Amino acid sequence: MTEKANDVIFVGNKPPMSYVLAIITAFSSGAGKEITLKARGQAITTAVDVAEITRSRFIKDLKVTKIAIGTAEMPPREGETRSRMVSTIEITLTKE
Amino acid sequence: MTEKANDVIFVGNKPPMSYVLAIITAFSSGAGKEITLKARGQAITTAVDVAEITRSRFIKDLKVTKIAIGTAEMPPREGETRSRMVSTIEITLTKE
Repeated sequence: MTEKANDVIFVGNKPPMSYVLAIITAFSSGAGKEITLKARGQAITTAVDVAEITRSRFIKDLKVTKIAIGTAEMPPREGETRSRMVSTIEITLTKE
Repeated sequence: MTEKANDVIFVGNKPPMSYVLAIITAFSSGAGKEITLKARGQAITTAVDVAEITRSRFIKDLKVTKIAIGTAEMPPREGETRSRMVSTIEITLTKE
């Protein structure tokens, strides 16, 4: 099976509840049993909040089945020459 | 064996390199083969940065062997009555 687009949710700088709602919608539209949250930089904290809020308040049978951290290279900012390294996280949520 | 105090490093709002140095010092003072980083709230991103910087730049044989996320209850802020929930992370680093 190939990974469907709605099995991955990119967490950015919107309020956490936007992403919680996206997860609930994805599961209820039959997206399968697994969703992966991906985030980088400051959004890492938001991704952890989203996972915790979703499983403690909304989908009780949701389990965090995998967490991976890594580093990604970002293009240099305007006027700079060196590329920047940012941390990343991937949190996989599985509905039993 | 009981867990020694220096096997846990609490990551707060200092610059990431302070914690990287703490990890290097702990390993070189014979703290054992495992160190756990603990952080909550916005410091979660710093904890991930610290783990990534340490293993990519300083201790090449370091592996992330466990990552756990959770929620902690914090006392209410001055003037508020409800306690706040904050996300937490624990990252275990093992030297091979």
